[in-house]
Amino acid sequence: MQEIKGLLEQIKQHDKLAIRVSSNSNNYLPADVMKMLTQPHRKANYFFVFVESGSVTHKVDLKDLTITSGQLFFVLPNQIHSVPEQKKDDIECFKMSFDQNCLSLLPKHFLFLLNPLNSQIISFNSDSRQRVQLLFEILNKILHADNDQKDSEIILAHLNALMTEFNNAYFKNVVKEKSETNKLSKYIEFQIAVETHFTEQHSVQTIADHLSITTNNLYNIVKEFSGVSPKEFITNRLMLEAQRKLFYSDTSVKELAYELGFSDPDYFSKLFKKTTGKSVTQFVGSIQDLLSN
Amino acid sequence: MQEIKGLLEQIKQHDKLAIRVSSNSNNYLPADVMKMLTQPHRKANYFFVFVESGSVTHKVDLKDLTITSGQLFFVLPNQIHSVPEQKKDDIECFKMSFDQNCLSLLPKHFLFLLNPLNSQIISFNSDSRQRVQLLFEILNKILHADNDQKDSEIILAHLNALMTEFNNAYFKNVVKEKSETNKLSKYIEFQIAVETHFTEQHSVQTIADHLSITTNNLYNIVKEFSGVSPKEFITNRLMLEAQRKLFYSDTSVKELAYELGFSDPDYFSKLFKKTTGKSVTQFVGSIQDLLSN
Repeated sequence: MQEIKGLLEQIKQHDKLAIRVSSNSNNYLPADVMKMLTQPHRKANYFFVFVESGSVTHKVDLKDLTITSGQLFFVLPNQIHSVPEQKKDDIECFKMSFDQNCLSLLPKHFLFLLNPLNSQIISFNSDSRQRVQLLFEILNKILHADNDQKDSEIILAHLNALMTEFNNAYFKNVVKEKSETNKLSKYIEFQIAVETHFTEQHSVQTIADHLSITTNNLYNIVKEFSGVSPKEFITNRLMLEAQRKLFYSDTSVKELAYELGFSDPDYFSKLFKKTTGKSVTQFVGSIQDLLSN
Repeated sequence: MQEIKGLLEQIKQHDKLAIRVSSNSNNYLPADVMKMLTQPHRKANYFFVFVESGSVTHKVDLKDLTITSGQLFFVLPNQIHSVPEQKKDDIECFKMSFDQNCLSLLPKHFLFLLNPLNSQIISFNSDSRQRVQLLFEILNKILHADNDQKDSEIILAHLNALMTEFNNAYFKNVVKEKSETNKLSKYIEFQIAVETHFTEQHSVQTIADHLSITTNNLYNIVKEFSGVSPKEFITNRLMLEAQRKLFYSDTSVKELAYELGFSDPDYFSKLFKKTTGKSVTQFVGSIQDLLSN
């Protein structure tokens, strides 16, 4: 199967944020990229489709999901995604992709991205649907404007509003799917345990005990659904929080390490560099760069 | 002069957030309240007027300010505000009020609220103006809906987007006023010094030295423009940050005190209670209450 890591970097619409929003009328992608995205591939980023009218079927992790007018559909990093051949003339929709780094610059963590209810389709009440549509229009317009109009803070503020709408609607109006397997429900329990306790540095063993499975079993399940080991999963969550804290407050490395439950700031710094590819100093520099446009 | 502290509590549109947004067509206020607000009064909260079409004159701190189509005008807590009698048939505008507590629940501090450029009128480029208009429509609609539709997180996310637009436009398109007095520019310097260094617990003496004025002089200036002493001003800023941190992260009182530059967590707790009227535990409880609707 095709790995498409790095693809968003090529098709993103902002020089500093890896984000892309398009509507029917402006989704111009090179033919080879289009082909790659319709074939089964492992997603490297978050992907959303909001259907304004018509309906469309996407395949995620071998399941067919049909989304109709007023619904949103999302794919998470590491899921296998494809778009089966179908008649598409009558569908109007917005599409959005962004990466983990972009997510780390939003002020809150959105629980729906753990997909605890095991459904990737969200519907909205009529007011909320209208707001979602307006926010997509706003983001779509900003990201297709001239470069000097694309202010990062404005984009992030509207993206945050949109994600808040999704999160809210997810827990209010989720469209339940069938086929909740035991493995998947264990994976969801694992994610929630991490989300609730990640700053306390829970060991993988403790979480496995909590879920009443062996660490081996937990390893296999987490690896299958997320592509990484339980340990890496926890580290990634911690580093996401670290990036968010660096963006939203003036925290020293020492304080940050302490807040995230690390007793050794040097170990924390090493882990940060290893996970994000940047040292804390480089990351803080890139934030300043981002805010200076 | 009339003090109108507590007025927003009576006319707010949300059971937990002290916020009010209205357009021409739904700004129904009791006649006595309307009269109070047109007469000179000391504002207890933030107030914004966005003019869609027409023009209107407001009086702030004895200065007449005329705002025309596409402009925003803001009044800060403690400023003296009135609306001179004028023909109003041809003006279409949105009005918004919210209190300090509401502001503390937004993820970022907005520098334009210090008014460092000494102008209370903001204009927008055409794209940004359109977005501001849409966001006012969204907030106006949510706040006039049935109570069970008024989700706090959604309101705060859109309010954050709107304030981000204001902040951005303020520094890009500020409409400069005349008459910047020396006293006012010292007050602005003071605010910026506090904003830059507040977590380092700078003493009032250090700031006065930095501004090359005596502490007495500084006291008089800060008291005149903000209504509080320099010491109280710094404490208020610290407690605003404390509330924000409590809302956006799971921080213990000890960590929080440390992050804000207090060596004694008990002293911090006392100050928090004295300034906000709630203990940290009560405040955290009120956040949980806010998010449960």
